[in-house]
Amino acid sequence: MTFNAWMQDIRNRTALALDRYLPPASHLPQRLHEAMRYACLNGGKRLRPLLVHAAGEASRATPEALDACAAAVEMIHVYSLVHDDMPCMDDDTLRRGQPTCHVQYDEATALLVGDALQTQAFVTLADTPLQPATVNALLRTLAHASGSAGMAGGQAIDLAAVGQQLNAAQLEQMHIMKTGALIRASIRMGALAGESLSVEQLDLLDRFGKNLGLLFQVVDDILDCTASTDTLGKTAGKDAASDKPTYVSLMGLTGARAFADDLLAQAQKLIAPLDARSTRLQAIALEIIQRTH
Amino acid sequence: MTFNAWMQDIRNRTALALDRYLPPASHLPQRLHEAMRYACLNGGKRLRPLLVHAAGEASRATPEALDACAAAVEMIHVYSLVHDDMPCMDDDTLRRGQPTCHVQYDEATALLVGDALQTQAFVTLADTPLQPATVNALLRTLAHASGSAGMAGGQAIDLAAVGQQLNAAQLEQMHIMKTGALIRASIRMGALAGESLSVEQLDLLDRFGKNLGLLFQVVDDILDCTASTDTLGKTAGKDAASDKPTYVSLMGLTGARAFADDLLAQAQKLIAPLDARSTRLQAIALEIIQRTH
Repeated sequence: MTFNAWMQDIRNRTALALDRYLPPASHLPQRLHEAMRYACLNGGKRLRPLLVHAAGEASRATPEALDACAAAVEMIHVYSLVHDDMPCMDDDTLRRGQPTCHVQYDEATALLVGDALQTQAFVTLADTPLQPATVNALLRTLAHASGSAGMAGGQAIDLAAVGQQLNAAQLEQMHIMKTGALIRASIRMGALAGESLSVEQLDLLDRFGKNLGLLFQVVDDILDCTASTDTLGKTAGKDAASDKPTYVSLMGLTGARAFADDLLAQAQKLIAPLDARSTRLQAIALEIIQRTH
Repeated sequence: MTFNAWMQDIRNRTALALDRYLPPASHLPQRLHEAMRYACLNGGKRLRPLLVHAAGEASRATPEALDACAAAVEMIHVYSLVHDDMPCMDDDTLRRGQPTCHVQYDEATALLVGDALQTQAFVTLADTPLQPATVNALLRTLAHASGSAGMAGGQAIDLAAVGQQLNAAQLEQMHIMKTGALIRASIRMGALAGESLSVEQLDLLDRFGKNLGLLFQVVDDILDCTASTDTLGKTAGKDAASDKPTYVSLMGLTGARAFADDLLAQAQKLIAPLDARSTRLQAIALEIIQRTH
């Protein structure tokens, strides 16, 4: 299977898994369930599910176990988007080319959609028929990555950083938490969902994940100032307009591109010892950076 | 130990447990962590922790296991209060006699406080050093009770019900989800955290929990129209003012009081077979209703 066909396959699987793991829109409260589905089932790149499945090739996890992990991590990601888009945060009206959840529904519903999606992620993992110790490891990984020491904490730092001058270390810390933690957790969950890997293998994957998270953010910053709103499916130039520190504002466009190249090289080297088990992860890393070139 | 001394002891334990299970305010992001602590460590009746510990006497669970469950369920409860108080929901400025989180901090912070408290509840349980199968059972109980089929779903129904005429069955359904699910989960978690109870015992406790949740809500509705803002520590008369359906608007004050008495009698009868194992739960049920008399 070509890499593109594989990505399409995982995206299709993930849409089906989300459909299966989200409460049906026919169940009470219907409007909330409909809005949860609206937020989750509108396409998107599905980077985190792709990472779960790619890392799952290293652990030879079953597709079913990976589907549950992929759906759970995507629900966390989508919940964060729904809340971030709200008027009291980024106040954005466009997401994945469609009206954001609070625009399509209303603010109170968007608040509850985010809340309930977060819970549903944990419901999904907790109900997965794997060994209890495996389920716990997956839950711990996702919970630690999502909370105030991870994604939500990074968001808080981001809020406080508007209008501030951050240095490279502070910017990195913010992104390691805000987007990096969940990207890293996606890889770790795929690695934990199957056969036990060695501590060394897990560690390599974890360091790769940390690197990839940062790479993703640098690329995001580059795209925010080079791509059009149409291409992105969300408002472009938003970071610069809202005076948010980015890798481009810190290093310039050329510097940010060189930094991305460095991060890619490091990431590729880290998982090279995993050989064939890392093929998909290597391809995803390349895919991420190619959007900027 | 008298029942009052026991309650005070559990409230003190719970404050210490929350302090232990919440990230320190000195950790990055400090403002978020400070706000999470502001929301959690301001007193409150701690009904759910009391229920966890009372049910834990039935399962002879260790105080440490019950502390983790109590802290987790209280974090979920507090997250829901923080989000419910926000301008796009109930727009309330006073909670437990103090400014609500978004008033004390700001809306974006309050949004993240709720998000991160929900996650921290699952972090707390996932990190608890009990048997993996027990941890899973606790996580599943809390997650199912918190999400769109429980607390968050009840909130969505509540939102949709403003200005509507609900019948008794619809009102009950809303409350079973909105407040009942978490009250029931508190009892179930206490029961699951220790020695295995029989299916019959668990079922009795579960039905007691369902009853108690409803009783709590009926009492809450009565207090909303009979007590002062000062006594409640939150804005009184709010439900009537915002045209929300309540048991008082449905049954009148006398009818609501009689319904509460019925629910108490049913609850007491349900766990009578547990004898000495249910002493604290019986006392809590009495305590709940006594506030109205």
